[in-house]
Amino acid sequence: MDTFKAFVCLIFIAFCVNGSIAYIVNPGPMVQATKGEIWPKPKAQTIGETFYTVRPKVLKFEVVTNFTCEILEKAIKRYIRIISSTKDRRKHNRSKSRHSTSHIDTMSWQTDPFYEGNLDLVKIRLTSECEKYPSLQMDESYSLSLNDQMGIIESKSIWGILRGLESFSQMLVLTEDKMTFRVNTTEIFDEPRYPHRGLLLDTSRHYINVFTIMQILDGMTYNKLNVFHWHIVDDQSFPYQSKAFPELSNLGAYDQSLVYTQKDVVKVIEHARYRGIRVMVEFDTPGHTRSWGISHPEILTSCGGQLSGQLGPINPTVNASYEFMENLLREIVEVFPDDYVHIGGDEVGFECWESNTEIGEYMTKNSVQNYQMLEEIYIQRIVDTVHSLNASSVVWQEVFENGVRLPNGTVVQVWTGNRQSLLQQITKQGLPALLSSCWYLDHLQSGGDWKTFYGCDAADFAGTDEQKKLVFGGEACMWSEVVDNGNVLQRIFPRVSATAEKLWSPYEVKDLDDAARRLEEHTCRMKMRGLPAQPPNGAGFCLNN
Amino acid sequence: MDTFKAFVCLIFIAFCVNGSIAYIVNPGPMVQATKGEIWPKPKAQTIGETFYTVRPKVLKFEVVTNFTCEILEKAIKRYIRIISSTKDRRKHNRSKSRHSTSHIDTMSWQTDPFYEGNLDLVKIRLTSECEKYPSLQMDESYSLSLNDQMGIIESKSIWGILRGLESFSQMLVLTEDKMTFRVNTTEIFDEPRYPHRGLLLDTSRHYINVFTIMQILDGMTYNKLNVFHWHIVDDQSFPYQSKAFPELSNLGAYDQSLVYTQKDVVKVIEHARYRGIRVMVEFDTPGHTRSWGISHPEILTSCGGQLSGQLGPINPTVNASYEFMENLLREIVEVFPDDYVHIGGDEVGFECWESNTEIGEYMTKNSVQNYQMLEEIYIQRIVDTVHSLNASSVVWQEVFENGVRLPNGTVVQVWTGNRQSLLQQITKQGLPALLSSCWYLDHLQSGGDWKTFYGCDAADFAGTDEQKKLVFGGEACMWSEVVDNGNVLQRIFPRVSATAEKLWSPYEVKDLDDAARRLEEHTCRMKMRGLPAQPPNGAGFCLNN
Repeated sequence: MDTFKAFVCLIFIAFCVNGSIAYIVNPGPMVQATKGEIWPKPKAQTIGETFYTVRPKVLKFEVVTNFTCEILEKAIKRYIRIISSTKDRRKHNRSKSRHSTSHIDTMSWQTDPFYEGNLDLVKIRLTSECEKYPSLQMDESYSLSLNDQMGIIESKSIWGILRGLESFSQMLVLTEDKMTFRVNTTEIFDEPRYPHRGLLLDTSRHYINVFTIMQILDGMTYNKLNVFHWHIVDDQSFPYQSKAFPELSNLGAYDQSLVYTQKDVVKVIEHARYRGIRVMVEFDTPGHTRSWGISHPEILTSCGGQLSGQLGPINPTVNASYEFMENLLREIVEVFPDDYVHIGGDEVGFECWESNTEIGEYMTKNSVQNYQMLEEIYIQRIVDTVHSLNASSVVWQEVFENGVRLPNGTVVQVWTGNRQSLLQQITKQGLPALLSSCWYLDHLQSGGDWKTFYGCDAADFAGTDEQKKLVFGGEACMWSEVVDNGNVLQRIFPRVSATAEKLWSPYEVKDLDDAARRLEEHTCRMKMRGLPAQPPNGAGFCLNN
Repeated sequence: MDTFKAFVCLIFIAFCVNGSIAYIVNPGPMVQATKGEIWPKPKAQTIGETFYTVRPKVLKFEVVTNFTCEILEKAIKRYIRIISSTKDRRKHNRSKSRHSTSHIDTMSWQTDPFYEGNLDLVKIRLTSECEKYPSLQMDESYSLSLNDQMGIIESKSIWGILRGLESFSQMLVLTEDKMTFRVNTTEIFDEPRYPHRGLLLDTSRHYINVFTIMQILDGMTYNKLNVFHWHIVDDQSFPYQSKAFPELSNLGAYDQSLVYTQKDVVKVIEHARYRGIRVMVEFDTPGHTRSWGISHPEILTSCGGQLSGQLGPINPTVNASYEFMENLLREIVEVFPDDYVHIGGDEVGFECWESNTEIGEYMTKNSVQNYQMLEEIYIQRIVDTVHSLNASSVVWQEVFENGVRLPNGTVVQVWTGNRQSLLQQITKQGLPALLSSCWYLDHLQSGGDWKTFYGCDAADFAGTDEQKKLVFGGEACMWSEVVDNGNVLQRIFPRVSATAEKLWSPYEVKDLDDAARRLEEHTCRMKMRGLPAQPPNGAGFCLNN
């Protein structure tokens, strides 16, 4: 008996959102999905009692201002396709009563007193010129109104329009005739809480192919995430095919079939741009560079002593390193249009530097008192180089922790340790910060750890309002030791949705039971759109995939 | 520094099989894959220095005895297809030296002194009549010889031939010209350590479609697993479309698109039969039956007191329950040809029985002293019913623990608690046992818990040789709270491979480093064959998928 109870509790405790006694398992799904709820939850939404029907074959989006552009036209086509391809696989003839009928999902809507006819037109009111690339400063606010048998999506910015289209597509609920959607009268004003809402993807530990990256970008759109942090190279492999240094991937990639050509990179950046997603690339140095050393051992440290024969981090005491880095960074800033370059700086093992006698001599000669200072010399020059190339830097927290003086505006990404204390310290020095510590997608727990993700908020630290504003947002991190093309989508979705809502929706949106019901729907929605999102809440089912 | 070390150790400690210092991460994959090693490792294999080439377009399997059958003919076609479709995606022209060349993988094999020409013919020597269905008693032993430019696979049984074909297909290593395989002269005698090597799949918590089940069966073949334990229904849903009681799935399935029709069931059984895999179905009673109660509340217990309004386990005090079960079991035994039916018996919550006053009266009247005895009355009748239908029963350990007297030959499956003590007790009473406790695929750990699976052996308990022989084997369990069609294959493979080897290969095969290298290859092999097996060992890559 005790074993029985312990087991059931262990498996189900995270899922018991109905307050039912643990050992009583009801038939049906663990969590009942909502219908037509938007994920992440909008800042302000009023839903009326009356409703319209939307016929995909008739529905039209019309840009009613003069500010249209290719991004908008492509987005309209995309959402028409998404809406039209919403399918219900249920075998109609054998439809049964228990799960498939509810008050908003019957054949009888025509005679419903709250029914107000078809909604055939959605007006797009974009009130200023399109920007070419999304940026940290982009305006993603929009309003969405469904009223008087008409939809209006309005924004000052193309990026806001994109977010509004996504919201609209999520509100449509297929009716029983499977040809028509139902949507309630609605007023929405929405804008994100944080401007930087990212997903880090590591493509070094395992190569993730371009098609899968594009699926990830699609999935980010469904969650209103706006930064694809491309951790493109690392110790294990160097898949980026550089123009200046093709030998890096020629020798440093796992294989020549496992590289990102310049064409591939453009493809990713364009796919992201059309969806209002920034591509922030990371070339992590001075550590995490072992794969660079196959073609360029001269820039890495030759370890001595017990580590003899091994190569360590980039050698900060030789000019070759800085010349190489400047040439590489010049290319990177040209290839990746985003204002920010992530220059890494995490996990620099000082052991190899310590073991190298020439580095010791350099330090004595130049009065460098410790390895933190040595790292500072290196990072300072890299940050300056990035700055001179008209870009800004993002660094991992160690750079801050080691006391490197950072120029104004350098963003510090917090990934481990006491996040609250770190956020407090970083912003106290006037530096912007990003939070990742609590959103590591490679960390697994049995069942649905999206709830752990959901319990973490980037504003939960002691600091002034000014300090809070310096938190630009955060990123979920998909390190790829244990994922490849075959399971990376499953591992990201829907767990990243929890992070996405924490970064978009107001602080007050944090009810777990409500989120569970909405995430149940959102997961099925993502599956219907082709992403193999995994079950978030235990036993259940989706009909549309 | 400490943070750095701690983090790297945490992530990589499981993967550090090269004896390298934890913070030194070498470029390239974490674990170097073997080439042409068979998984699970054969009982006895001698590999010569000389080698042949095998050309898929020329290779022929020839049955040289009179005992051929459809199973064999289909298998030959299947393996010809598997071998022919082995592709290497590397871009040849840009092939680089670091990963793609090694002594057994160059263009120069023609001039290698150990090269002994083409192997174009594999003779199949089946020395007795094919059986129609695999069974617990089936003979899976085979010998495989590659010598004198000829292959010979010999077995007394069609099932042994199937296992031999699988082994042969795994030994072929693609050469650099990508049209030819290389294989060393080899002598193998192989047979499994345990006759019951299973995978449980729960299709109630999430519906797994027939196509995915067939992929799972294919994957079982690649690991020489031979029992598909189909946990087909449970509390949450009843997807089995019964002939006698169609209302069970009409009302108890999640949806009418999420059912297994009789045709579906036949499809699964046939797909399994052709691969030498038994389909052992489970209809778990008296608990885990809530979905049954939607159409047949009369057989479940109406709880009283605080649980009033709830339905509990099957009511063991009313005749309706036994009549219903006899009719259902009669159908099950007819539909599923295997000798064994799993009748469940796990996690029976006694609270509902306790709360029902009529059950209390029955117990007083019939001198049933406790709920264990009440359960015994029920299970005893079900086991007898199964027996009268010429089948045997498998039960979960609780049935044994509750002291139910079981007829000879009833198999007890151990899934929790102190497995060693349980195996000892069960076999001491002369009952056969199956082990599952340490092979729960729904339990996740960060990274590669296949190593935990691999550390568990079904013979590691105190008992006589006679007792050890009563362990028929074991099963890995894929409970489906957190998996559906989108991630179930990734969750099963390659972790189930660890269980498969523990149940097939000799006790002495337990070197983790060696297994890691072989599993790295085996995972890529499964991926090449279309299964999205997840990375087993951290950073790495497969070329063929």
